[in-house]
Amino acid sequence: MLNNPDIILPEPTLRRLPWYLAYVEILKARNVEYVSSTQISRALNVDASQIAKDLSFLSLKGKTRIGYEVEALAGTLADFLGFTTSHKAYVFGAGSLGAALMQDSGLSNYGLEIVAGFDVDPDKVGKTVAGVRIHHIDSISDVMRKAPASIGILTVPVECAQETADIAIGEGIKAIWNFTPYRVKVAEGIVMANTSIYAHLALIFNRLNADA
Amino acid sequence: MLNNPDIILPEPTLRRLPWYLAYVEILKARNVEYVSSTQISRALNVDASQIAKDLSFLSLKGKTRIGYEVEALAGTLADFLGFTTSHKAYVFGAGSLGAALMQDSGLSNYGLEIVAGFDVDPDKVGKTVAGVRIHHIDSISDVMRKAPASIGILTVPVECAQETADIAIGEGIKAIWNFTPYRVKVAEGIVMANTSIYAHLALIFNRLNADA
Repeated sequence: MLNNPDIILPEPTLRRLPWYLAYVEILKARNVEYVSSTQISRALNVDASQIAKDLSFLSLKGKTRIGYEVEALAGTLADFLGFTTSHKAYVFGAGSLGAALMQDSGLSNYGLEIVAGFDVDPDKVGKTVAGVRIHHIDSISDVMRKAPASIGILTVPVECAQETADIAIGEGIKAIWNFTPYRVKVAEGIVMANTSIYAHLALIFNRLNADA
Repeated sequence: MLNNPDIILPEPTLRRLPWYLAYVEILKARNVEYVSSTQISRALNVDASQIAKDLSFLSLKGKTRIGYEVEALAGTLADFLGFTTSHKAYVFGAGSLGAALMQDSGLSNYGLEIVAGFDVDPDKVGKTVAGVRIHHIDSISDVMRKAPASIGILTVPVECAQETADIAIGEGIKAIWNFTPYRVKVAEGIVMANTSIYAHLALIFNRLNADA
């Protein structure tokens, strides 16, 4: 099945495939029918042979001189990346970033469905953000039984990051998407993805200062 | 000046420094007075000699057998990373992610001050999100004169990403923080940071499927 690759794709390939998808979706919107890896290469500054290699994971081959069919390529990429399948997630920490992610309807267009939020703040527990109910972390077993999820989005304060991840994993969460600047440690077999918002801020600030 | 490093720090160092800061802030909250690089190393799984090397950029030296003073280290790191200085930014694209970022008050704690939003949707232009006014992109010159900013946060649809970045840079924006999956091209001297939300989703989905 195309949307259930059993192979572990290399991280650099997984980073580039969404770029190709974004570009191909633009072409599709412009009613372009075919695209060559040379064209993608010029648009995205990625080596054409690298593109062909990345796309070979999808068992997609371009036609000589014509290239890839745009619509088929867009559909196959989205399926292959898992963006067309619903993956259920909890948000841990319904503070400002957590609430923002619950409100970002864009994530659901990419296959991420946030089904519950957790917090310890009595002012937040019991409330609903963008249709998602916030539960007390102590009731996670109960929520997990009724509306299970495999992905835990971590937006708690740094000092609670490790403990919260441990609780989530203990209850059956299989992947942690960490938005905190804390390096959470997880057992082997648990998927970890770190979105380092603060590292990107630090990079921007440093480069701006160095230019000035 | 510590919070105005004129040197361009290596990207890996800029990625690790916020980890140290997060860890040291936890220690500070626990009233710990001193921390050694060995301790940081154990907590974060980073080589102790690497930590000492990264921290040497801050002209901070630990005392033999005692280590670094926690409070001084936290303050120096935050200053050095630019988190204690206000950097003004515009959000381009007041859709779901853009609005979410405007509502994320956490960013202002790390030195990012969003002073205006831009969109083309008549339903959004003129409105205010979390105190930030949304302007039509056509009035950017005017806004830039009255409330200048150097950072452009890009949360527009992919098909507008390049055009919007070009407009922003043309008006004096010096750094693009790109949240779209499109590989925006910028002239030399313009700072680019890509936060690849969709690549992280793709990574999580792929690893979860491969495990199943």
